[in-house]
Amino acid sequence: MKVVEGIGEVRAAVAAARAAGAGEVGFVPTMGALHAGHYSLIDAAGAGGDFVVVSIFVNPTQFDSGEDLDRYPRTLAADLAGCAARGVDLVFTPGAEEMYPSGAATTVHVAGLTDRLCGASRPGHFDGVCTVVSKLLNIVRPDAAYFGEKDYQQAAVVRQMAADLNMPVRIVVGPTVREPDGLAMSSRNARLSPSERAQAAALYEALQMGAEMVLDGRGPGEVRGAMRRRLAERAPSGEVDYVEMIDPEGLERVEEIGDSVLIALAVRFPSARLIDNIRVDLPDAGP
Amino acid sequence: MKVVEGIGEVRAAVAAARAAGAGEVGFVPTMGALHAGHYSLIDAAGAGGDFVVVSIFVNPTQFDSGEDLDRYPRTLAADLAGCAARGVDLVFTPGAEEMYPSGAATTVHVAGLTDRLCGASRPGHFDGVCTVVSKLLNIVRPDAAYFGEKDYQQAAVVRQMAADLNMPVRIVVGPTVREPDGLAMSSRNARLSPSERAQAAALYEALQMGAEMVLDGRGPGEVRGAMRRRLAERAPSGEVDYVEMIDPEGLERVEEIGDSVLIALAVRFPSARLIDNIRVDLPDAGP
Repeated sequence: MKVVEGIGEVRAAVAAARAAGAGEVGFVPTMGALHAGHYSLIDAAGAGGDFVVVSIFVNPTQFDSGEDLDRYPRTLAADLAGCAARGVDLVFTPGAEEMYPSGAATTVHVAGLTDRLCGASRPGHFDGVCTVVSKLLNIVRPDAAYFGEKDYQQAAVVRQMAADLNMPVRIVVGPTVREPDGLAMSSRNARLSPSERAQAAALYEALQMGAEMVLDGRGPGEVRGAMRRRLAERAPSGEVDYVEMIDPEGLERVEEIGDSVLIALAVRFPSARLIDNIRVDLPDAGP
Repeated sequence: MKVVEGIGEVRAAVAAARAAGAGEVGFVPTMGALHAGHYSLIDAAGAGGDFVVVSIFVNPTQFDSGEDLDRYPRTLAADLAGCAARGVDLVFTPGAEEMYPSGAATTVHVAGLTDRLCGASRPGHFDGVCTVVSKLLNIVRPDAAYFGEKDYQQAAVVRQMAADLNMPVRIVVGPTVREPDGLAMSSRNARLSPSERAQAAALYEALQMGAEMVLDGRGPGEVRGAMRRRLAERAPSGEVDYVEMIDPEGLERVEEIGDSVLIALAVRFPSARLIDNIRVDLPDAGP
């Protein structure tokens, strides 16, 4: 496994792999602090491809506060060991000055999808994501890039950007991986205090309860209210950022539930803001 | 020469050329109504490359008014004949729905360079340019893309975008081609009335006068004033949009002239808005 910090080295390594006959290059962009969710994407890239590239870069432009950026977990040695164990071919670990040299002035913006949910609470966040993903895709030039469903809105935004800009890459979205108590794997979980960690299980509990209520035919307003009450009771240290029922494609808030709905939430604990979601597909109503 | 309207056909033709050993693909994006300026870029692409792609697409997102878009000259048959005569391999002539399917929501923005000169008079223009150039580069995936120096700010913005987003392409800027009376070749020249066409020679006259004054050691304020007076006298139907003396790299307005300066101007005639520029390199001041 090769570990490089320079853009030129990435290009050279990928070009060499292509020249050696790698038909399919798979790419997993990450901010490090790798967990089972990342590794499931890496495994998917390995199953689908001949050459697997992982990037580890805590992208400053997608953080709204310097504090959150500074506290983002960094576990490079363990990440590299994990990548090596999974047969990753190339890990790209650029510094901030390699990715954003002085004078950088270009931003990629997706309208619409980004003005709600996490986009509403984190202004500029998705511009940072789109810009860094554009850069990484142009550096690696993979055939497929892998994103996690836990960051559902991010995956939708990246898919829209790739389609709109005709990026020659398949965007693959892998399922959320969960802890035994249901908490979605996230690098930010490492920042939770023991008490917050125990309360954080309430996110998935609330989502499951919401999904059952939807299947029972309850409307969005009632479901949101019940979920908020459940979160207030089970996660008292957390402040609800949003609980939304949205269309899984356009991410618009739904007031009436159709064939399928995405329930998405964000809860801000003192130590970290967590997000999660669940998709509910309703059985055919019959003739 | 192949002429195609579909993105998939472009990708297939370029892939076939690569598979057949084309080491260097050159690309000239245009809005059609091709003139000697375009053809000089096509010749440069042909000299540098094994496979030359030209796109002809009047990009609606870079026009600020529907009127200017509707009146933009369209001469497809002549353009195709000209491309064929110059050995172009592939011409891409997409419709608007191929480039901007319903729901498209992504924009590429370059800050700074775009907030002055034509960016100030044509809000959103450079976002439209950057977005369509990003798309075309992702569709064609050329090794080099060619732009004209007449659109100096556009070339600077595209170069900045390509660098910032790590686009794997060389941006090549070709010199302005002029009519015998000095008027810079532009597709919009075809829209000028005979009287406007005669007056339009004043743009280059004013630029040449400005360049001489700079070489004579005159300051930017005096040069701008003299150029404006010359334009008022020789092109009375034109309204000056801007006359600026700028740094050729960062495009900032200069108040004191250093080693080199770009004099750029835009004049709005009733039938068309024209732009032009000239670069002045000052001889070494000596020890």
